[in-house]
Amino acid sequence: MIGKKEWAIAEGYIPSGGPGDEDRKLGAHETACIINSGEQDAQVEITIFFKDREPAGPYRKTVAAKRTLHVRFNDLEDPESIPKDTDYASVIRSDQPIVVQHTRLDSRRGGVALLSTTAYAQ
Amino acid sequence: MIGKKEWAIAEGYIPSGGPGDEDRKLGAHETACIINSGEQDAQVEITIFFKDREPAGPYRKTVAAKRTLHVRFNDLEDPESIPKDTDYASVIRSDQPIVVQHTRLDSRRGGVALLSTTAYAQ
Amino acid sequence: MIGKKEWAIAEGYIPSGGPGDEDRKLGAHETACIINSGEQDAQVEITIFFKDREPAGPYRKTVAAKRTLHVRFNDLEDPESIPKDTDYASVIRSDQPIVVQHTRLDSRRGGVALLSTTAYAQ
Amino acid sequence: MIGKKEWAIAEGYIPSGGPGDEDRKLGAHETACIINSGEQDAQVEITIFFKDREPAGPYRKTVAAKRTLHVRFNDLEDPESIPKDTDYASVIRSDQPIVVQHTRLDSRRGGVALLSTTAYAQ
Repeated sequence: MIGKKEWAIAEGYIPSGGPGDEDRKLGAHETACIINSGEQDAQVEITIFFKDREPAGPYRKTVAAKRTLHVRFNDLEDPESIPKDTDYASVIRSDQPIVVQHTRLDSRRGGVALLSTTAYAQ
Repeated sequence: MIGKKEWAIAEGYIPSGGPGDEDRKLGAHETACIINSGEQDAQVEITIFFKDREPAGPYRKTVAAKRTLHVRFNDLEDPESIPKDTDYASVIRSDQPIVVQHTRLDSRRGGVALLSTTAYAQ
Repeated sequence: MIGKKEWAIAEGYIPSGGPGDEDRKLGAHETACIINSGEQDAQVEITIFFKDREPAGPYRKTVAAKRTLHVRFNDLEDPESIPKDTDYASVIRSDQPIVVQHTRLDSRRGGVALLSTTAYAQ
Repeated sequence: MIGKKEWAIAEGYIPSGGPGDEDRKLGAHETACIINSGEQDAQVEITIFFKDREPAGPYRKTVAAKRTLHVRFNDLEDPESIPKDTDYASVIRSDQPIVVQHTRLDSRRGGVALLSTTAYAQ
């Protein structure tokens, strides 16, 4: 079992414009890619932090044993959606060891721009 | 409380050209995204290192408890601005545990290019 | 000898479209760059995780002593190819210390987009 | 003094084409950004690893106390240049604690693409 149970992504920003959420492949999106390589399903809680308001969440996801789940921040709805064009950050806690990588696709200007980094683990 | 109190970003370069600082969304910029998930406000000091002159700063910022602050290097003014088209690097110290991620948006050529990485923590 | 024996890349996605696999330089691809700076050849096993099916692999590679091998996920064939446009993740195990970095080139829209990150080590 | 004395960058590739080495800002290049925040000059040795030949180097650089040096792999000449369009990797050793970040700018297709990651430290 590779991974840790507590992760943070300090960067977060879903740009508006471009193809938009209807285009799953090329619409701008931001993702927390999670891998659970262990034998137990992982119960994951994501909390979203903002600049000037109380945190949102927790958003709950299950990452099944020996599976990966690429969670789009765009898709989070319960308890609330994440606004576009707004700085945020996230903390991800799991009851099983996981590994988290953060990726953004920005297609505001017609082309594609990408960023990605292994998140910070503790 | 997730994070550490001492961080370094070895890369730093704010390109000139393109839409410029007036366009907050698409003008070229470089950011230190900071999350403070703890219960205490964090007092943060940023020091900027150059190739051939003494370091600049410290620049002081407060990252409130349970908040994120995305600090644009373009916006730093006191004690001095960071010149464009110049190699720099930064060290970020906090009195509370924080997590830092470094992002650049480069729009010199009309499109958008992005880079991002979790900074180095100690 | 720098490195560790167990690595994870939580992000994985090979986009279809654009120049394609025939263009080795500009076709979309995803790579696990591996360095073995030690004196012993490293036997490496890559396992691919998916959202909704059992893991694939292990794929076996040898990274010779004092050499680097940039493994394209597009090229993996035995025991099976990795489908395009599909979320995946990978775990990489080695019998010698190695360092792993993950890179994607996305050329679906004609231009080039890049992402890269040092993988997660344990 | 923040940092470590041994670093590895498993990814390395300098694309040919585009504006080229004469255009320092927009020509394709790859960089090891190094920060030495300590009080002592750092003597740094870079060794380059390839897929199918012996390593090149060491390349020697001094990163002065309280300075950053962004070393372009394109500029390395002694003992030999790094070929374009060739997979490589690097190990960076220092006698003082440093932090290393790896960045590439790819401008083969006219636009700009960027990747960056904190290197692997030991």
